[in-house]
Amino acid sequence: MTRPNTPVLDRVAGPQDLRRMDDRTLTQLADEVRAEVISAVSETGGHLGSSLGVVELAVAIHAVFNTPMDKLVWDVGHQCYPHKILTGRRDRIRTLRQRNGLSGFTKRSESEYDPFGAAHSSTSISAALGFAVGRDMGRPTGDSIAVIGDGSISAGMAYEAMNNAGHEKRRLFVILNDNEMSIAPPVGAMSSYLSRLYANEPLAKMRSLAEGFEAALPAPMRDHAKRARQLVTGAMQGSGTLFEELGFEYIGPIDGHDMGQLLPVLRAARARATGPVLIHVCTVKGKGYAPAEGSADRGHGVAKFDPVTGQQAKSRPNAPSYTSVFGNALTDEASRDPNIVAVTAAMPNGTGVDIMGKRFPARVFDVGIAEQHGVTFAAGMAASGLKPFCAIYSTFLQRGYDQVVHDVALQGLPVRFAIDRAGLVGADGATHAGAFDVAYLANLPGFTVMAAADEAELVHMVATAAAHDAGPIAFRYPRGNGTGVLMPERGEVLQIGKGRVLQEGTDVAFLSFGAHLDEVQAAARMLEGEGVSVTIADARFAKPLDMDLIRRLAREHKALITVEQGAQGGFGAMVLHALAAEGAFDRGLAIRTMTLPDRFIDQASPDEMYADAGLSRLDILRVANQALGRDTKIVSLNRA
Amino acid sequence: MTRPNTPVLDRVAGPQDLRRMDDRTLTQLADEVRAEVISAVSETGGHLGSSLGVVELAVAIHAVFNTPMDKLVWDVGHQCYPHKILTGRRDRIRTLRQRNGLSGFTKRSESEYDPFGAAHSSTSISAALGFAVGRDMGRPTGDSIAVIGDGSISAGMAYEAMNNAGHEKRRLFVILNDNEMSIAPPVGAMSSYLSRLYANEPLAKMRSLAEGFEAALPAPMRDHAKRARQLVTGAMQGSGTLFEELGFEYIGPIDGHDMGQLLPVLRAARARATGPVLIHVCTVKGKGYAPAEGSADRGHGVAKFDPVTGQQAKSRPNAPSYTSVFGNALTDEASRDPNIVAVTAAMPNGTGVDIMGKRFPARVFDVGIAEQHGVTFAAGMAASGLKPFCAIYSTFLQRGYDQVVHDVALQGLPVRFAIDRAGLVGADGATHAGAFDVAYLANLPGFTVMAAADEAELVHMVATAAAHDAGPIAFRYPRGNGTGVLMPERGEVLQIGKGRVLQEGTDVAFLSFGAHLDEVQAAARMLEGEGVSVTIADARFAKPLDMDLIRRLAREHKALITVEQGAQGGFGAMVLHALAAEGAFDRGLAIRTMTLPDRFIDQASPDEMYADAGLSRLDILRVANQALGRDTKIVSLNRA
Repeated sequence: MTRPNTPVLDRVAGPQDLRRMDDRTLTQLADEVRAEVISAVSETGGHLGSSLGVVELAVAIHAVFNTPMDKLVWDVGHQCYPHKILTGRRDRIRTLRQRNGLSGFTKRSESEYDPFGAAHSSTSISAALGFAVGRDMGRPTGDSIAVIGDGSISAGMAYEAMNNAGHEKRRLFVILNDNEMSIAPPVGAMSSYLSRLYANEPLAKMRSLAEGFEAALPAPMRDHAKRARQLVTGAMQGSGTLFEELGFEYIGPIDGHDMGQLLPVLRAARARATGPVLIHVCTVKGKGYAPAEGSADRGHGVAKFDPVTGQQAKSRPNAPSYTSVFGNALTDEASRDPNIVAVTAAMPNGTGVDIMGKRFPARVFDVGIAEQHGVTFAAGMAASGLKPFCAIYSTFLQRGYDQVVHDVALQGLPVRFAIDRAGLVGADGATHAGAFDVAYLANLPGFTVMAAADEAELVHMVATAAAHDAGPIAFRYPRGNGTGVLMPERGEVLQIGKGRVLQEGTDVAFLSFGAHLDEVQAAARMLEGEGVSVTIADARFAKPLDMDLIRRLAREHKALITVEQGAQGGFGAMVLHALAAEGAFDRGLAIRTMTLPDRFIDQASPDEMYADAGLSRLDILRVANQALGRDTKIVSLNRA
Repeated sequence: MTRPNTPVLDRVAGPQDLRRMDDRTLTQLADEVRAEVISAVSETGGHLGSSLGVVELAVAIHAVFNTPMDKLVWDVGHQCYPHKILTGRRDRIRTLRQRNGLSGFTKRSESEYDPFGAAHSSTSISAALGFAVGRDMGRPTGDSIAVIGDGSISAGMAYEAMNNAGHEKRRLFVILNDNEMSIAPPVGAMSSYLSRLYANEPLAKMRSLAEGFEAALPAPMRDHAKRARQLVTGAMQGSGTLFEELGFEYIGPIDGHDMGQLLPVLRAARARATGPVLIHVCTVKGKGYAPAEGSADRGHGVAKFDPVTGQQAKSRPNAPSYTSVFGNALTDEASRDPNIVAVTAAMPNGTGVDIMGKRFPARVFDVGIAEQHGVTFAAGMAASGLKPFCAIYSTFLQRGYDQVVHDVALQGLPVRFAIDRAGLVGADGATHAGAFDVAYLANLPGFTVMAAADEAELVHMVATAAAHDAGPIAFRYPRGNGTGVLMPERGEVLQIGKGRVLQEGTDVAFLSFGAHLDEVQAAARMLEGEGVSVTIADARFAKPLDMDLIRRLAREHKALITVEQGAQGGFGAMVLHALAAEGAFDRGLAIRTMTLPDRFIDQASPDEMYADAGLSRLDILRVANQALGRDTKIVSLNRA
């Protein structure tokens, strides 16, 4: 594949080289970085649109600020490809999101230019304020710069950080990267407020700067600055923008693709700031690459593609995704029960509730990046008698954990949690792993916790959740496609707390919870090849446990192995606690609990990640044989 | 004790009676409710100041709105005593916060007038919006009213809810109860913004109301309304308050102790509102009771007191509180290491970091009610090389769980978590129980998790945390006073992952984690009286586990019992997982894990709560005997 011609970029070993370039050269550099990003992501797939939106910003920040002494924190971090190319990682940029390759996000262990990693949104201002305090207390660190998008800044956490930063009054730079579109179309009054700020002026004219900064600007910009700012913000006499109310100096909005605005504004801000400053930069997601700019999501997350046509590689035809199975099953239940509503936190497409939204738009609520509010809002709806499905990825539901405990579990309110991306998720790596949900839900009194072994099970669990009014209920399912099983015409309501037995044997019993069932079955085939008789059960429920089933499995087999796609403290722990309480270990029980190991698993394919985690079929085979006191001949293959 | 004379209140069976009273009678009713609150809390102790601040508000809301069909949600809920007196619970008001008595907060199971319980802050707007959606979708519910304080509304969650409510545009009432003082002195730019709104006008003049509402007011108020509002908010030409930016109609500020303002404003709002409305009400915490108004915390939380003098009952002299031991030990470490800093989320006094703040004010950060920000801010400071102690109650750290996972654990940053109020906490009940922290921390890779068995251990753990730069570390300790042990002059750095053995025996081994050690020792005395030889070990660490110790205890005893003041999935689960992995159960091990049971425990004294939870010394005795295969003669005493 031909690589772009990048004569200026080829001379860049690190950000220090940018600081010796004139503004024209920096502008050319930005163009070359853009070409390099398109070329690289065409080979790897990834967050193309976000990265294209901040090409000029990345170049300008590194040219003006003294990174890595100055601490640059990219919020979420999925827009960091230009930053990585400029900070010594260009030679590895075509390994993005791959096994042993660069992370798709910023990552401390990867570079000194990543002082604070991310992947979840809205953390950057808090972290940057932490560095600012460190600097003021004598730690060897320079300025703090947070770059945060208009979606991310609308989360409560960012508001908390702005509020505290305004109070602290320390020198701190927050660059609002406003592209009028986060992952989903803009939601929330915040977005409409931002839109209002610049709705009446074309971008090119927006050079207004906060008072006090204007004098530092080159003469051609100085003239219209004050008037434009007043026009845009309506801040004639003291009353200012939301950011000013919170104690920030406000500069902007400026055109984030115009180096002629970015460079002088950043230089002025750096020269003059004494307290917290918000620099409002308007960018276009997917900027400079027509196929991205022209697509509905502006190339937010793309597969490998042809850089000339923009045509993305098609994944092979396969079983439906769990996400779409959930979306369709939910829509089906909603068509029969008008009390069913759905809540998403800025992920209608990612969670599949957009499928329901197309048929029942008034019953689907996108609350924005606001998991805390989303969970309690759902609890309020449940208290009014509605049947809310709260569809949040496992890793993001961590944001609403206290609300799950305090507003849902304590009150026993029947909120239904649809937990997508449970288990290891592949290219997004450790930050997006759904590792902890079973552990943090199954010990909450009154909670029912299920996991789907395949996509047909998921349909049944949606029906079960819809029918379950006795208290909160959650069901988890993995990222990606189902296993291709025959799909039921309609979900059936499962008996709460009852598992199912898939095959009966006599030597070892596997008690699988959730989507690792296929690996368990594969391990069983191998064991059977070695002459071992295997029982396979699907627990379906981590809570309440099917104690009749568990007792029988323990009693009738030489060994009992639980398997789950989650961390310690989850399903296996609940089984161990229950058996210990009954004295089931007193006279001996060869039990093993296979969980994710006690370390974070780096990105790779999900299969590779589970092998890394010690949860491959060979690992299951090995553990079963060990529990049975047998040798396993082929176990060494696993570590080859 | 003489009871106040309350002729009007005596005629109130419920809020419907208020709706037949004229305004003068309602004013007298408020005075009588205030007297009743003072009288009741003098007998029970409780949140006096907050409740006195909302006496008029509670009377006015119930007089104007149609509760319980209209849903009234009190944020936090600790100000609900007037509300409880007015809603059929007056006869039980002197059982507040006691075993089998009224909860100190709102609680769904207690009354239909408590449609959504609380105790943690900032949930009310989310819940109220949920009810508003329910109403709009045909559920039998009327208007939604959230009452929220100036401290609570500064949390990110409330901002998320306001943002979403502004977007939804549904009819919704948010009453901002602004007393310029939440639990701690005002922090954050939000508070200063609020102060600015009314700094220049005495309260009595503040009758300004949002445009559109003014016409509904009685004539005497109408005149100055518009001008006053403009004066106060600076909103001359379109630009408005923060609340208006978020899509709310803004009414106020008004005097929350003047029924002549409250009643007409609420009536006008109720008659005219079409979308979300914020009513800004200024109140004085402790209002109308001089000893409360005159105290530094305005009578926030009081013990029983003499209603005439305000003199609070003294608790008997005792061992120092864990909180003060932590505060002093932290200050001691901070005096030796200038990199030590502390973070609190609006609880400097409750967590004891105020002790450090007195000596090192620049190194203690009160971030406001903002646990999400607080945790990541601490992570940022740790990344800069500082040594942050993040002091947050167990139950409130749930609010920062994702930040603990994503910003601290994933990056392995050495943030020190001081987790006060671990375990059951007494009068504050189930909502404040520190039940889940071990379970949600111990399965995070790289985390070190300790629990202090007594106040001397706590001193050592503070020293250990200060010295531990290898990754995140947490230590938990209970509410209340220590056990009276001899205190070390200076904390010693414990060996990571090593427990200690307190006494050696041969029959049963207790492995205690944390502050239940004294109950374990008491049970051991009883067992020894029955001729059983007992080993007692203090694990100190839930992570990393002291596997050498655990293996030895398992090998050398007939039974092994773990005991902890926390839920399933915590310390005991980690021990079970580790032993199962080693095959320790294969040939038999009589192990039991004593944890909090799988239900929420209602308020009582901590001892009563632990007895309710099945964790009394008698329960420990019973479980040990059962594991040993012995009868326990006195076990029935426990359930007497």
